[in-house]
Amino acid sequence: MSANSSSTSTKAVGECASLILQGRDRPGIVAAVADVLAKHNGNIVSLDQYSDDPEGGHFFQRTIVQLEGLKARLPELEADLTTALSEGFDITFTLRDLSQPKRVAIFASKSDHCLLDLLWRHSHGELPVSIAMVISNHPDLAREVQRFGIPYFFVPSQGPDKSEAEAEHLRLLKDNVDFVVLARYMQILSPSFIEKVGVPIINIHHSFLPAFIGAGPYAKAKERGVKLIGATAHYVTEDLDEGPIIEQDVARVNHSDSAADMQRRGANVERNVLSRAVYWHAEDRVLRNGNHTVVFP
Amino acid sequence: MSANSSSTSTKAVGECASLILQGRDRPGIVAAVADVLAKHNGNIVSLDQYSDDPEGGHFFQRTIVQLEGLKARLPELEADLTTALSEGFDITFTLRDLSQPKRVAIFASKSDHCLLDLLWRHSHGELPVSIAMVISNHPDLAREVQRFGIPYFFVPSQGPDKSEAEAEHLRLLKDNVDFVVLARYMQILSPSFIEKVGVPIINIHHSFLPAFIGAGPYAKAKERGVKLIGATAHYVTEDLDEGPIIEQDVARVNHSDSAADMQRRGANVERNVLSRAVYWHAEDRVLRNGNHTVVFP
Amino acid sequence: MSANSSSTSTKAVGECASLILQGRDRPGIVAAVADVLAKHNGNIVSLDQYSDDPEGGHFFQRTIVQLEGLKARLPELEADLTTALSEGFDITFTLRDLSQPKRVAIFASKSDHCLLDLLWRHSHGELPVSIAMVISNHPDLAREVQRFGIPYFFVPSQGPDKSEAEAEHLRLLKDNVDFVVLARYMQILSPSFIEKVGVPIINIHHSFLPAFIGAGPYAKAKERGVKLIGATAHYVTEDLDEGPIIEQDVARVNHSDSAADMQRRGANVERNVLSRAVYWHAEDRVLRNGNHTVVFP
Amino acid sequence: MSANSSSTSTKAVGECASLILQGRDRPGIVAAVADVLAKHNGNIVSLDQYSDDPEGGHFFQRTIVQLEGLKARLPELEADLTTALSEGFDITFTLRDLSQPKRVAIFASKSDHCLLDLLWRHSHGELPVSIAMVISNHPDLAREVQRFGIPYFFVPSQGPDKSEAEAEHLRLLKDNVDFVVLARYMQILSPSFIEKVGVPIINIHHSFLPAFIGAGPYAKAKERGVKLIGATAHYVTEDLDEGPIIEQDVARVNHSDSAADMQRRGANVERNVLSRAVYWHAEDRVLRNGNHTVVFP
Repeated sequence: MSANSSSTSTKAVGECASLILQGRDRPGIVAAVADVLAKHNGNIVSLDQYSDDPEGGHFFQRTIVQLEGLKARLPELEADLTTALSEGFDITFTLRDLSQPKRVAIFASKSDHCLLDLLWRHSHGELPVSIAMVISNHPDLAREVQRFGIPYFFVPSQGPDKSEAEAEHLRLLKDNVDFVVLARYMQILSPSFIEKVGVPIINIHHSFLPAFIGAGPYAKAKERGVKLIGATAHYVTEDLDEGPIIEQDVARVNHSDSAADMQRRGANVERNVLSRAVYWHAEDRVLRNGNHTVVFP
Repeated sequence: MSANSSSTSTKAVGECASLILQGRDRPGIVAAVADVLAKHNGNIVSLDQYSDDPEGGHFFQRTIVQLEGLKARLPELEADLTTALSEGFDITFTLRDLSQPKRVAIFASKSDHCLLDLLWRHSHGELPVSIAMVISNHPDLAREVQRFGIPYFFVPSQGPDKSEAEAEHLRLLKDNVDFVVLARYMQILSPSFIEKVGVPIINIHHSFLPAFIGAGPYAKAKERGVKLIGATAHYVTEDLDEGPIIEQDVARVNHSDSAADMQRRGANVERNVLSRAVYWHAEDRVLRNGNHTVVFP
Repeated sequence: MSANSSSTSTKAVGECASLILQGRDRPGIVAAVADVLAKHNGNIVSLDQYSDDPEGGHFFQRTIVQLEGLKARLPELEADLTTALSEGFDITFTLRDLSQPKRVAIFASKSDHCLLDLLWRHSHGELPVSIAMVISNHPDLAREVQRFGIPYFFVPSQGPDKSEAEAEHLRLLKDNVDFVVLARYMQILSPSFIEKVGVPIINIHHSFLPAFIGAGPYAKAKERGVKLIGATAHYVTEDLDEGPIIEQDVARVNHSDSAADMQRRGANVERNVLSRAVYWHAEDRVLRNGNHTVVFP
Repeated sequence: MSANSSSTSTKAVGECASLILQGRDRPGIVAAVADVLAKHNGNIVSLDQYSDDPEGGHFFQRTIVQLEGLKARLPELEADLTTALSEGFDITFTLRDLSQPKRVAIFASKSDHCLLDLLWRHSHGELPVSIAMVISNHPDLAREVQRFGIPYFFVPSQGPDKSEAEAEHLRLLKDNVDFVVLARYMQILSPSFIEKVGVPIINIHHSFLPAFIGAGPYAKAKERGVKLIGATAHYVTEDLDEGPIIEQDVARVNHSDSAADMQRRGANVERNVLSRAVYWHAEDRVLRNGNHTVVFP
């Protein structure tokens, strides 16, 4: 059974903005923000708030606000929020017109199950993103992707030196995307690339982290005789397999499953977990906090 | 895998209140409430909000607020909220000191799995309620219950006329409890009792409603050859098996399970589902809306 | 978390046969069969056996047997089994060369999620069937299907009289398929068609039967305020929505999910449940017993 | 949703035996065994068979056989099986009268959730074992246990030298038990004890192995920001946390769960996982194979 991802925000999205706040908790934040929104006659469609410690902890808030003539009034609203939060608060915020879907580039290699799941959901209106391009170190999936009307860029990346490939990646991505998804992209990204790309990168790890870190998790799972296998979607950081976890799920296996069977079952879990993570990220439902995430599903 | 029930509210409960708001949605509700809380220097520990339609729909909000000297200041806070919400809003609210656990009476018959699960969790500090009494139409479980230091009242209830038993129930419950839990109580409550008792009643139905309504669900499930069996916790209304659903869950069965096996597995699901429902109700996480519920787990 | 479907049978399939036995239980069946297999020097790769009552109940057995030169020796093996089981046993059996995948026709309408999931798994070697054709009462999915190299037949079927369409269906299917899958085919099949087609038909019902029988289950689920939605794969019989259940699963929903959201989540469950059911049927893992099934996953 | 544990064996157990076979796979094993059973007029109630490689792999079989006058005829049946399997087979077997429940000692410390779950299920006839004793390094749970009519032995075990405590354990266990369950027993067993006790030991590890090996898994899980926590039941070997896994399960958590909340949820998973493992072991459903298990649930 899978976790929730709600979708209130899909209603009347043309007039809705997401407002994400993060910072040091103290009394009055919600009121200060709600006052500004009320002054603009904005209607709060949904509000999720969490504080990891009411006494001086970290504060997280996701608000979806409906506002007539949103586009025109966004700058003024933003200015008013900046003013309201400048006095005595230690809070940062982002305000985003939800009618503008986030732009994403998907990286893939030869496995297509995660990639196709994202493309299929997107083509059915189930993924509120704009897929700007697919980048792969193999040419194999080009036709498959282009069929969906999405550009496919084959960027070879062999050997330990990724600098040329990554330079090409950066050229393609620059100013064109708001986040990157690694949909079973089997190449390691250099710290320099991660820094330069400047947008969040979501990866699907084909195991239930922190178990079976690294390559070949299904063989390791078979070897260890586990009864459940899983997958983990996380943000990419310099520490491989150690970035903040967004979502995880598992599937049951048994002794009669070969490593190949586990891989087949695992593929199912991977695509579901990655799709949920991308969906939540697209709707600003995932707030990063150090090496953790706060997810308002 | 089971659903979430978070528990931020268990922190610093001695100084926390829950504020539940419900009514017609319009801009400004969150701000009006947050202003009052900020004026009292209350810190919003968590805030969940939901509107079933931003344009004139129904509005639901659960707020946990931390306030120094809460007990003494509650009346003033309540008065200020009443004032703030009287002007132009169509909203009702309840404000409750969370250090005062809700008082509950548990009704049981001969099955003890749900009852014992509640008593056990309570005795381990995992259920923020005060169990005032257990009432049963059988004497069987008396020793079991009294061992936990909880009063047990045996109220026989045979035949179709429940009026005498129910009169006794009402005498016992009057002013003593904030809600009632039917932990596999195998007697039907009369509409008159439900009305007179005047507090919410939570029932565990031993099937995955609306499938297998009524008695003998496991035999019916076996007969129908289903592959999953479930349980449903719901509020009791005059319409048997039709009250607002709080929580549901399932367990997998197969052809080799007899109806008795299904019952055994079902008992597991029942106790987990009922415990979650009682926990959420105890923490004001369940808001009723007609024949539905809004649950902020 | 999903149920198991093991896959021992994928090993060395070229030399494996499935032997399915069903009938009245009595001592000696397993021995009689195993003797014949041993005489042929067959190796039992897996054996699942179930009896619904050891005293005169119904007996079910699925055996995968490995045999060198299988194809040539199948007739003799079949003859020997017939002889061995003719004396004092009330058992029927089928013996099938597993290297010959079952041939299937998939019926669809406009929804493509179940259909594409089957096509995608098949194209990745994850579904041991031969997809002979897709038949639809709409032309919409033709290109999508033909891309997989599979014939698509558009057979209009409007109005209450299905006789012309069904006659065309029967012409297409005759001798060409071993079973039929209704992958969200939104037309009711006539009892006459079900009888004439003469092969098993698997349907995916977009609800957790027996709850929400009939059309519009997601709207009904929303209306009822359920916390889990599900899907059911079953064999089609004359009694609509009442045929033997093969597999079921559920997904969690909450108050913030609209009926459309539930439908989107439900689609996920539907495609997983249907794929499992088709996989199991393809590998002779589902044995029918009146209105029930025995599944050896 | 939890895994299956079927229960055919509860039927007519007084006349049923379990026959467990393990060894090198080759054609004819099933037939040889079935012949002996048929000769004794035994009825095979259920038969599960698995081979990890049909060509010279390892063979596993669990058979439940019903036999009139079982007790008297067991020695002869055993002798006939020994004879039948001595010629050309490399197979060992155990034959056990299922009406004789396995005797178990449960070790506990201060946590009672796993212990009480076992005691409760046992007292309700849901666990086909005979609980010979509870042994604890703390006196706290004595009254709780003795209430169920089960002997409680308090054996202090402080400091690194466990030899005295373990000597006492061995005195208590010798010839009295068929297996041992560590129900959250917080002491490490010495390799010498594991060897001398000579019966299988089942442990519940409060994490989803191999993640979070060792102590404090909930704190580690919180620190790592995981979205699922789990528990693992396994046989104890000299390698701490590395013995063959019997069963695993998970529960969903989120950012708002403290390490204590995770522990509370984890306790639920632990008791369910341990109970399933004990149930399966009691019914001879778990076959060890090196560091793996074959489970016929």
